[in-house]
Formats: sequence, structure tokens, C-alpha cells
Amino acid sequence: MIPDKDFIKNPEVPGPTKEEIRCVVMCKSKVSSDDVVVEIGCGTGGLTLEFAKRAKMVYAIDKDVEAVKITRENLKKFGREEKVQVIQGDALDVLENITSFDILMIGGSSGDLPSIMEKGYEKLKINGRILVTSILLETRVEAVKTMQAMGMVPDVVDISISKGKIIERGTMMLGNNPVTIVSAEKL
Amino acid sequence: MIPDKDFIKNPEVPGPTKEEIRCVVMCKSKVSSDDVVVEIGCGTGGLTLEFAKRAKMVYAIDKDVEAVKITRENLKKFGREEKVQVIQGDALDVLENITSFDILMIGGSSGDLPSIMEKGYEKLKINGRILVTSILLETRVEAVKTMQAMGMVPDVVDISISKGKIIERGTMMLGNNPVTIVSAEKL
Amino acid sequence: MIPDKDFIKNPEVPGPTKEEIRCVVMCKSKVSSDDVVVEIGCGTGGLTLEFAKRAKMVYAIDKDVEAVKITRENLKKFGREEKVQVIQGDALDVLENITSFDILMIGGSSGDLPSIMEKGYEKLKINGRILVTSILLETRVEAVKTMQAMGMVPDVVDISISKGKIIERGTMMLGNNPVTIVSAEKL
Amino acid sequence: MIPDKDFIKNPEVPGPTKEEIRCVVMCKSKVSSDDVVVEIGCGTGGLTLEFAKRAKMVYAIDKDVEAVKITRENLKKFGREEKVQVIQGDALDVLENITSFDILMIGGSSGDLPSIMEKGYEKLKINGRILVTSILLETRVEAVKTMQAMGMVPDVVDISISKGKIIERGTMMLGNNPVTIVSAEKL
Repeated sequence: MIPDKDFIKNPEVPGPTKEEIRCVVMCKSKVSSDDVVVEIGCGTGGLTLEFAKRAKMVYAIDKDVEAVKITRENLKKFGREEKVQVIQGDALDVLENITSFDILMIGGSSGDLPSIMEKGYEKLKINGRILVTSILLETRVEAVKTMQAMGMVPDVVDISISKGKIIERGTMMLGNNPVTIVSAEKL
Repeated sequence: MIPDKDFIKNPEVPGPTKEEIRCVVMCKSKVSSDDVVVEIGCGTGGLTLEFAKRAKMVYAIDKDVEAVKITRENLKKFGREEKVQVIQGDALDVLENITSFDILMIGGSSGDLPSIMEKGYEKLKINGRILVTSILLETRVEAVKTMQAMGMVPDVVDISISKGKIIERGTMMLGNNPVTIVSAEKL
Repeated sequence: MIPDKDFIKNPEVPGPTKEEIRCVVMCKSKVSSDDVVVEIGCGTGGLTLEFAKRAKMVYAIDKDVEAVKITRENLKKFGREEKVQVIQGDALDVLENITSFDILMIGGSSGDLPSIMEKGYEKLKINGRILVTSILLETRVEAVKTMQAMGMVPDVVDISISKGKIIERGTMMLGNNPVTIVSAEKL
Repeated sequence: MIPDKDFIKNPEVPGPTKEEIRCVVMCKSKVSSDDVVVEIGCGTGGLTLEFAKRAKMVYAIDKDVEAVKITRENLKKFGREEKVQVIQGDALDVLENITSFDILMIGGSSGDLPSIMEKGYEKLKINGRILVTSILLETRVEAVKTMQAMGMVPDVVDISISKGKIIERGTMMLGNNPVTIVSAEKL
């Protein structure tokens, strides 16, 4: 995993997703070098980069111009531009124009989560995976409900991480914000 | 509990201990209106104030002049000066001059934790309680070991709290730093 | 707080709410000796007992006959029957027959959460508090939404506790299930 | 990651390390197909299997005959026996007979942690990694101190995971025991 501190950041853009969360997302996604990934809400590009290292092709989408810009800068910094198409635009519009894919990763949805999941599900290959990372209480419930309505069996993991900061007197534990990962496979 | 945001703060002084942690500390201390409390490392005075509302008498000690000042200001703000003696000085020296007490609360120890616990244990009444709040990995282990060496049975609780921040799109969960409370009764 | 292990238990009945969670619920409820408390879903009676120690009067309601029975047994064991009326029945029906109260504590709602909250809100005194403890992702979102719809400002706290078990080799940390407490005051 | 439930288990043997923790351990280990891994305290073989999928060679050591047996059974079940040498014996003795390696993973140490880390450090290649997973408060502190004494810079991550269990009324969150991963690189 790329250390959190190595990413180029923009205070206006959320992310990067913290190292350990990126790690669990990669595991849950079961990404392999055959996979096409569509990522909605790429933010700073933290997950984009990890998928780019592992997948065949990544479509990274964000409606925010600044997010698209910083994702591109981070891809360039780590030499991973080749396999990634970064697209500024509306998730539903972009999904319309992608034929099919193996992984739908939703890190941000601007309130359109069920529609994005439904549209994505249509184009998701059999055995493909949908993943939603959630920092809002509402998003995780919406993800679970939408997956269930589409006949998927959601796996729900809430991860609270605290990291040790070595100071003179010892190891101070600093809490991160918890993240819930909701994921499921298309059967 | 006094809301966290209502305390007067000084960026140089740690605290106040977060509301929910203060709450659990009060429960674990079993403080009643008959109790004399000695608090080492009062910082901003968060726990001092809660003890002042419930105990007969509180000695709040900090070696830091600024901590002593801000604790006094907070006691004044909430009208709880009467039952509290705030003392700037070394914990071991001050403990030397207090006859006996029911609760020893250690929120900070400047590396002297075992000595403070041992000196405090001597003066602690039978059925009195020692509590240590720890944000360092090392402190909680030291507290457990010292209690065991003195024949106490430590209760260890690690508390990770995240709080909801209501934003337009929903309820965002923000993680606090975890705190471990180690407590035991003198048998 | 009454230690978890001291409660009479029935494997068919949920609870008691863990000691530290009971502690934070008591703090958030701001319960005082003037308060009338209505508790929906009393289960084993863990919170019932803590409210009984602090409030003027408690109505503890559960639709499950076994829960009502075990709550009564626990109240008897700890000598707190006097101030508590334990009622077997439907929450909405019972709420209909209570005039007014200061605290509405909802630990279980059998899927009727918004209706119970709305009915309770009507009868809640000004400055009264509604509290919902949630172990389901869905419940906490429903509680937040219903409070907001009624003009309340929800306080959301998710509490993850792990407790130390002293074994020969050291202090093993055992995780409890996280609980979210959603609470708000009637303005 | 192999799902937790797919491992053959023996109630006398700890593990397998939970899926998400295995995932973060793999990330922190930076394991690649060139790496030789030494694992002390393989237990049920959860981490052994994940290393076997990714490394060149794995030595899995446990002093417990039953652990060695169950690790072998799990390797066989998942067809990963080829690259793993499972050894029943004392960690220090076995380390004596291994020339050099890239990753030292310590999941259990029977109280010998500093000695094992020191002996392992000697044989660890430059840029090699030591990882300690800890469920005891004492182990994580010992790991941090020993790494620091050897001139390593420890990375400390405490991971609390709760998993959603889908029941009729919603998604119930069940807490796992927290695990702390302490890791560092030999410079």
C-alpha cells in the first residue's frame, strides 16, 4: 500500500482512503489482473491507485473537477496513468457508456446511491463485486437495502483503526474515523 | 456531564477528557458524597469538575502551572470551586501531605506512575479505588502490573467512541482517540 | 453500576445492557430524582434497574412475557421493585395510557420505532429526552431521521468497548458488540 | 482471503486470524513472491496459508503438536503444502537453523517475544520486516520496545472490527476482539 502521507492532497477533496482501509477494500474486491474496475467518487485517488496496480483497467469517475485533477496528479506521481481513465462527470451518465465490468467501487455517490448501484448492477458481470465504503450512517443502510433488493447478500464490516504515534513518553493511540465497507457478489 | 465544548481551553493543556469517558470514569470510581478524591494530572479540569459535583472533597494536582490555572478557571465558570483544592506541584510531594482518601484518579503521571500508585495505595482507605486513564499503550500495562503487584484485581476497559456529525447528506461518524480505563479496589 | 454478571439471566431474553453502556445511557438521559421514565423493551432489566435507582418512577414495558418476568426478578433481587411498574404489552398501547413523562428510553421496538417515538414525543415533557440504543444499523438511522422530522437535534454516539481478561500471560482484550446511542431533547 | 469459516478448526488451537486482520497483515508485510517467511506461532494456519499464496517459501513454526497438525490439514485442504515447511518445535531452536529470511511474523511467542525478535532480527535480511500480532496489552508494548531497542521504527495499528449479521429485523453489528499489529522494517 502507498503510505497515506505520500499522496498529493487538496484540502477541498476528500481522501485518500486510509492505508488499512484501502487494504481491506482490495481484499474484499478480490481484484485480479483480469478485472475491469469502475470507481465512483475517486476523490484523491487513493483506491484508484491501488486498483490500478492490480486490475486490467480502471474507470475513475468524480463529478468534482478538483478531485479528477488530484487523482490524475497522484496517478502520474506513482506512474500508474496507463491503465486508468479518469472521467469528470455524473456517475449515471458515465455508467451508461461503459459496456461491462467486474468491480463497481462506490466511494461517493452524492445521494444517488441506489440508482448508481442499480445501473451498475445491470452492467456488472456475473461473479462481479459491488463495494461501498461508507462514513455516513445512512449510506451503509442504503447499500445493504439496495443489495438485498437486487438479490445480493451483503457483507458488512465496520473498521475502527487507531494508530500509534511514538512520542517521548510512549506510544499514543490516535483514532481514525470508522469506515464501513459493504460488499457483495453478483450471483 | 458538562458538554466538552463548554470548557475553557488552553491549547497547551491536555483535555478536557471527553464527555463519555468522564461518564464511564465516574461510574467506575463509584464516587459518592462521602468520598475524598485525589486527582493527579488534572489538565483542563474535566474530571475535576465531575468529581466536584459528586464528592465531598477533591484535591486536583498538576505540575503544570497552566493546567492548574485552567482547572481553576473551569471550576469558577461552573461554580464548583468550593470543594476543590487545586495544587500546583509534584504528585509524590503532595500525596505525602494528604492523610487519606477514597479515590485516587491518575490522568497523567509524567512517567512516575508506579511510584504514584504505590504512594497513593498506602494512603487509600480500604474499599477505596484507584483509576488510571491511559492514552499510551505503555501506561495501561504499567497500571495493570502495579495494581497486580499491590494485590489489586484490575478492571481494564478500552473505549473507542465515534460521534455523529449531522451534515446535509447524513450522519458522518468521527472517531475519537481511544482511552483505556484501568481501575481497582483496595481490598 | 450493577456488574453484568450479577443479573439473573434468561438465554431467551436479550441483555442486560453492558455496564459501560448503561453508564453512558444514564449520563445522556440526565436522569434525576424528579423524572418519570418510560422504557420500551426492558429485556433483562439492566437499564430499568439503573433508572430505578435514580428516577422518581419507571414504567418498564416489554411485549415478551419472559422479559417482563426476568426484569421483575432482577428488580426484586436488587430491591428496586417499589418505583417500577413492569408492563407486558404493546408499546403503543401502553404509551396511550401514560399521561406524561421526562424520559423515553427505547431499547427495543419490534420494528415500530418511528411510531413509538412519535407517540412518545407527544407525551414527553418539554426538556424531556428520548434515547434509543441500537445494535442494528437500520435502527440508528431510523432514530436520527425520526428525531429530525420531529424537530429534535440528535446526539449520536457509537461505543465500542473491549474488556481486559487477565490470563496468565497478560491482559487479553475481548471485544463487545458496539452499541450506538441516539438521544435528543424536546425543545 | 480465505473466508474464516472455511478453515478446519480445532477448539484447542487459537485462530484462524480473522479475514480482515489477515488482509492488513499481508499489506503490512509487503510480502512478494521473492520472499522467505518465518512464522512463529502458526496456530490454525490462517496467516500461513495467506503467506503461502504470496511468498516463495514459508517456515511455519508452533510448539504445539495440535497446531502443527491443524496447520498441515488446512494447507492440504487449500492445496498449499508445497511451499510451506511446518515445524513443531521451539521458536529459538528453529530460528537457529534457518539461514536468512525476509519476513518474520510472530503470532504467538509463549512469553519469549524479545528473544525471538532479537534472534530473528539477526537473520532478517536488510529491508526485511518483523510483524507481531497482539491480543494482549503486554505483547504490543514489548514488541514496540524491542523494535526500538534494535533501532527499528515501529508502525502500530490497533484494529477493531465489527461485522454485520443480517437478521430479519436488520443488520446486527457483532464485535470481534481487537488486534494490534506492530511492524517494522530492518534498515
